[in-house]
Amino acid sequence: MSFLTQKVAQEIDDLLMNKMGYSVYSLMELAGLSCANAVYRILSEKKIEKGRVLVVSGPGNCGGDGLVAARHLHHFGCLVEVVYPKRPNKELFQNLIKQITGLEISLLDTMPEVGKVDSDYDYILDGIFGFSFNSKEGKIRSPFDKILDTLSKTSTPVASIDIPSGWDVEEGDILKTNLQPETLISLTAPKLCAKNFKGKYHFLGGRFLPESLCKKYEINLPKYKDTEQIIRL
Amino acid sequence: MSFLTQKVAQEIDDLLMNKMGYSVYSLMELAGLSCANAVYRILSEKKIEKGRVLVVSGPGNCGGDGLVAARHLHHFGCLVEVVYPKRPNKELFQNLIKQITGLEISLLDTMPEVGKVDSDYDYILDGIFGFSFNSKEGKIRSPFDKILDTLSKTSTPVASIDIPSGWDVEEGDILKTNLQPETLISLTAPKLCAKNFKGKYHFLGGRFLPESLCKKYEINLPKYKDTEQIIRL
Repeated sequence: MSFLTQKVAQEIDDLLMNKMGYSVYSLMELAGLSCANAVYRILSEKKIEKGRVLVVSGPGNCGGDGLVAARHLHHFGCLVEVVYPKRPNKELFQNLIKQITGLEISLLDTMPEVGKVDSDYDYILDGIFGFSFNSKEGKIRSPFDKILDTLSKTSTPVASIDIPSGWDVEEGDILKTNLQPETLISLTAPKLCAKNFKGKYHFLGGRFLPESLCKKYEINLPKYKDTEQIIRL
Repeated sequence: MSFLTQKVAQEIDDLLMNKMGYSVYSLMELAGLSCANAVYRILSEKKIEKGRVLVVSGPGNCGGDGLVAARHLHHFGCLVEVVYPKRPNKELFQNLIKQITGLEISLLDTMPEVGKVDSDYDYILDGIFGFSFNSKEGKIRSPFDKILDTLSKTSTPVASIDIPSGWDVEEGDILKTNLQPETLISLTAPKLCAKNFKGKYHFLGGRFLPESLCKKYEINLPKYKDTEQIIRL
C-alpha cells in the first residue's frame, strides 16, 4: 500500500479542487461521512449504543471534516458534542456551524478537563490538524497544545482524522505530543506518518480518488467493497 | 409515512440552503450517493456484476444528482455512461462535467435508440426532472419528450430520482408520459405523486433532514439503519 508525502497530498488536493472540478464541500462531505462511518463501526464492535462522541475540530479543513462527521454521527443516533475553539470567518466554516447548531448539537468553546472527558464520552474524534500541519514551528499553538495534552491523557479512545494531530505528516510524533490514537482514519491515501501508527483500528476513507491520479502518483490502495465508504486496513 | 407537496419540498430545499447553512454541493453529494447506493443494491439483488448503467440527466439539480450518482457508481465498479443533452453554464454543472470526464465516463449528447438501450444497458437512472418540474406547460420540452418516450418503451428497467420524470409532482402521470419506472428513489421524503408509483423498488434517500424541519412540517419517515444512506420502503 502507498503512503503519501505531504507534498503529494497537497498536490492531489489542489488538482482535485482547481483542475478536476471537485468542490471543497463535496470532498468534505465524503471525508466526514467516512469518519462517521468509521467511528460508528468501532462503537458497534464495542457494543456501545447511542455512543457519546466528542468531536474536536481545529481551524482548517480537517476541522471541517470533523464538523461534517459530527452531523452524520448525529443522524446515525450518536450523542455528539463538538469542541470548536477557533472558528474561521470563512463562509464554509460558518455554514458548517449553522448545520451543527440546527441539529441542536452542543458546540463548546473549550475542551473539558481530562476527568470529565474520561467519564462523559465513549469516543473522541480528533479533527484538529490534517495533512497541512507544519511541525517546523517546533510547538503547537494555544489552545491546541493543551487540548492535545488532554487527548494524550484521557482514557477515552481517540480516532484521528488523516493524521494524529500534532504529528509531523511524514515523520510522526517528533513534537512529542504523546498522542497515540486507538484509531486512524486515513483519507484518500495514508500519509507517511501512518507507518508509525500503532493503534488498533486503521481505516481508509474518502472514496473519490480518480484512477488518473492514482496512476500519476503511482498510488496503490486496497479495493473498497460494494458501496462501502471505508475499508479497514 | 408522509408525502410532500411541491410547495413544501421547495420550502425545505430553500430553508436548508438559505437559512440552515447547507451547500447545494453537499446536498447533491448525499442525494447522488443515495441514488448510486439504490441502483447498486438492485443490481446486486439481480446478481448483475459490473452493471452497465445509463444515467440520463436533465438541466436542473435532479440532473446534477444523476451526475454525482454516475461518479459513485463508477467507483462502485459499474460501467457507467451519461446522457446529458442540455448542459447549463453554471459553475456547479460545469464542475460536475469535469468530474465525470476526469473519470473517463462517456458523456453523450443524445439518447441512444430504444433497441440500443435495450441491449447495451442493465439499468437506467432517470435524473431528467425533479421536484421543481412544472406540468402546467402541458407538454415536455424537446429533447426530453423523445427521451421520455424511449424510457417508457425500453425493456431496460428505470430508476427515477425523486419523481418519475414528466410526472406532475403531486398528481402523477397527467401528461401521459407512460413512464412506469421499476424503481423510485425518493429524496428527503416522498412527494405526493409517489402514491401512484407501482414499481417494484421504492427507496428513501437523502439522509440529512434535520429533526426541526420534520417537526415544522409534521413529516414522519421510517428510521434509517446504522450508517445506511437508503431505506427500502
